[in-house]
Amino acid sequence: MIWLSGKELARERRKVLRQKLELLPQPLCLAVILVGNNPASEIYVTAKERAAKKAGLHSRVLRLPEDTSANALTLLIDGLNQNPGVHGVLLQLPLPPHLDMARHLQEIDPQKDVDGFHPVNVGKMTLGLPALTPCTPLGIMHLIRHYQIPLEGKNVAVVGKSNIVGRPMAQLLMHAGATVTICHSLTAHLPEHLRNADIIISAAGSPDLIGPECLGRPVYLIDVGINRLADGAVCGDMQTQNLATHPHCLGLTPVPGGVGPMTIQVLLENPLYAGSGSRIDQTLPLHP
Amino acid sequence: MIWLSGKELARERRKVLRQKLELLPQPLCLAVILVGNNPASEIYVTAKERAAKKAGLHSRVLRLPEDTSANALTLLIDGLNQNPGVHGVLLQLPLPPHLDMARHLQEIDPQKDVDGFHPVNVGKMTLGLPALTPCTPLGIMHLIRHYQIPLEGKNVAVVGKSNIVGRPMAQLLMHAGATVTICHSLTAHLPEHLRNADIIISAAGSPDLIGPECLGRPVYLIDVGINRLADGAVCGDMQTQNLATHPHCLGLTPVPGGVGPMTIQVLLENPLYAGSGSRIDQTLPLHP
Repeated sequence: MIWLSGKELARERRKVLRQKLELLPQPLCLAVILVGNNPASEIYVTAKERAAKKAGLHSRVLRLPEDTSANALTLLIDGLNQNPGVHGVLLQLPLPPHLDMARHLQEIDPQKDVDGFHPVNVGKMTLGLPALTPCTPLGIMHLIRHYQIPLEGKNVAVVGKSNIVGRPMAQLLMHAGATVTICHSLTAHLPEHLRNADIIISAAGSPDLIGPECLGRPVYLIDVGINRLADGAVCGDMQTQNLATHPHCLGLTPVPGGVGPMTIQVLLENPLYAGSGSRIDQTLPLHP
Repeated sequence: MIWLSGKELARERRKVLRQKLELLPQPLCLAVILVGNNPASEIYVTAKERAAKKAGLHSRVLRLPEDTSANALTLLIDGLNQNPGVHGVLLQLPLPPHLDMARHLQEIDPQKDVDGFHPVNVGKMTLGLPALTPCTPLGIMHLIRHYQIPLEGKNVAVVGKSNIVGRPMAQLLMHAGATVTICHSLTAHLPEHLRNADIIISAAGSPDLIGPECLGRPVYLIDVGINRLADGAVCGDMQTQNLATHPHCLGLTPVPGGVGPMTIQVLLENPLYAGSGSRIDQTLPLHP
């Protein structure tokens, strides 16, 4: 069993990214829009800011009050779209309930859409065309490649069908030749589906969902879940302790230190692919 | 065992469509671009023309020579985009090898993209937003709904991961709550995957690929394959005769007369959803 350390891989890739950024004629700038006071969002945004700084990327966090109107948010996004000094725009989710997520995500210039959530990028990625790609799934692809986990012709079970992780993850895996099963909260007999998998990727957000009964053959386990328990501790979707010592477990991502750091690292790399001019650095492959 | 007759359902829906079209202030016009002399494409285009006429839809087939330049095709598409008398634009595939399919599909105005292949429509459909949706997968959804085949929490195996059928099919099935496995030419042990399915949808284009060994429980079989054999006969991906009498077979689409007529029917319905003005007829649900 090996630990699939996103923390280590992110550190390696950050060094490369830093060098690439230093070669650019001007620093890249990532704008992060945070509406309201969601405490989890505050933590994520702070982590992104810190990581951006370490990588040598300028980041600008735009904090808006909880009662920001849709039109004010539209105007702000439009200004960032027009601003040539801003290379990536990220709208931190979730938005307060009175704001329409789909509308505002579509307002971001697809070329600055570092989260890869704009329909144009979703469509291009699905079709196998170059596109800004959602950070968590792309980070997981980097992790799989780094640890030389085979994908072609392998069975991969993805748990969760969100637009942020599950669906784009399935697309990237299919492009790599995997046979993909997408399970979710309505799936009957989840363990049965998982027992056929060579790789299980769980983004269910359900603590301890996946235990030894889900392992039917030698398998790599990738845990996207970040669940906060009543006592404040953080755990993933997998029963890490039970699974790490299971004879079928070939590899496992720790939580924290697995998928999380890769998500942030890809977010910092994506501005390199934003825009369409010479700024695009083709040497870091967009699809791993 | 029941035959899932796309021919019958398409005939029913055509009546409704005809009535809807008669209520419009002006006839809808579907423009079909055919480049070169691919014999299969000629057959499809003729079938589309005939069906459009029956439904009361104007169709204009624009035949271009095999050696049409990329720029000439771009100009033609642009003209159709600008023409307010054209409501749907379809580029018949495959294109001759010197033309770039991805480029020209992206040139079609997403609002006139009746095939649903433009990245904007692919992205919106994936995200669950209203979108022009590819004809074959949407036709299959209509068929499934019409025959009241349950989807929520059911296992569906899709064979084939093309942008035209397999991938959009998987998205629509996931939106309907199914657990979806996408198999393809690299899949190991195909029958094993299929034996867990409550519905098998095959778009592999491989004659007789699916036989009794693939049926592990009561299952509905939907055959998208249209394979022409050496003797000129047409068959699907499924061993229809063996499967129709199999005790596990709950329902089966005939070939021809199953999925094919539904594909054409949806193509004729899609112009109703083109554009963004009052022309959009919301009474025919876009996602069934």
